[in-house]
Amino acid sequence: MQLRSEATRQKILSSASRLFSLNGYDGTGVAEICEAAEVSKGAFYHHFPSKQDVFLNILNDWLDQLSSQMQKARLATPNVPEGLIAMSALTDQVFQMSKNHYSLFFEFWIQAMRHPEIWQTAIAPYHRFQTWLEAILQSGIDEGSLDPSISPDVTSRILIAMVLGQLLQAFFDPIGAAWGEVTKSGIKTMVNGFSKKPI
Amino acid sequence: MQLRSEATRQKILSSASRLFSLNGYDGTGVAEICEAAEVSKGAFYHHFPSKQDVFLNILNDWLDQLSSQMQKARLATPNVPEGLIAMSALTDQVFQMSKNHYSLFFEFWIQAMRHPEIWQTAIAPYHRFQTWLEAILQSGIDEGSLDPSISPDVTSRILIAMVLGQLLQAFFDPIGAAWGEVTKSGIKTMVNGFSKKPI
Repeated sequence: MQLRSEATRQKILSSASRLFSLNGYDGTGVAEICEAAEVSKGAFYHHFPSKQDVFLNILNDWLDQLSSQMQKARLATPNVPEGLIAMSALTDQVFQMSKNHYSLFFEFWIQAMRHPEIWQTAIAPYHRFQTWLEAILQSGIDEGSLDPSISPDVTSRILIAMVLGQLLQAFFDPIGAAWGEVTKSGIKTMVNGFSKKPI
Repeated sequence: MQLRSEATRQKILSSASRLFSLNGYDGTGVAEICEAAEVSKGAFYHHFPSKQDVFLNILNDWLDQLSSQMQKARLATPNVPEGLIAMSALTDQVFQMSKNHYSLFFEFWIQAMRHPEIWQTAIAPYHRFQTWLEAILQSGIDEGSLDPSISPDVTSRILIAMVLGQLLQAFFDPIGAAWGEVTKSGIKTMVNGFSKKPI
């Protein structure tokens, strides 16, 4: 029963995700999500109080998945600079995961801007991720592999910017460059810029 | 007469820009733009064949203004690495210019994705800007100030990514950091990473 319930939740999330990408957040109703997921409205509201909650769950699941993969990549390397390079290799995967959800990505930003309650809930996972990356950079300073004069806070935001900015360009100009490679190269240049020795 | 015509054009552009930011591209009609700009429909269509054309003109004017300021910053410095740093100081201005138009920025991406004809026209200024930056990086290699092993193409996209990614974060979390400063710091780390000597 528990398993079936989780399967229903996943069906709702993946149908909603596809519909949001296709028709936008405002252009998608709960009725359509239920139809596409082949679930009753009762089942829908058993899992999610609102369409907005579905939207935030899609975002959260995606960020959780990404963080845990990055954590694994970090733990498989002997120091922070090498960990950051290994994590940057995951950007190919971020690009793959985002490829069919670009629209959702932008919808998310638009909705966050228009609806303060979405913004307040959505900013929490962003802050969690940024704080997590900041702690990794601090541990690099502590272990002596990163330049102690860098600010872990500022540097974490710079690394996030690099990936977000490549996503924006990749969406806009998909055939213009091998975006996964460009991102890895950018992260590597950055990491070399603040590591104690070149890697 | 010529001056008055240009004033009308500017009034239409600034009213449209404000309305697009407020109500979205799809939520704004030509009639409302005319009303806000206090011009007749005849005057509107004298200047612009369509609402879409207004949208693309706003984007083009913004990018032209930015490029010419960057060009000036570049010419006022003795070499490419210092030119890039001077150009990065302009990001504060980009942030100021974008602050009231974040929504427009995201609308633009959404519209480009949904309407191939907007995309085809909008990608031209992006390519122009990227090619311009790529040429600057090549001239840095030629003058001997930049590491000859870097790819000017890849590096131009990395620098653009940095600024775009900071814009995204600044929109999402305006009080989270001094975004202009974070961007300058990011560009400086990058430029140090591929300059022949630290600056």
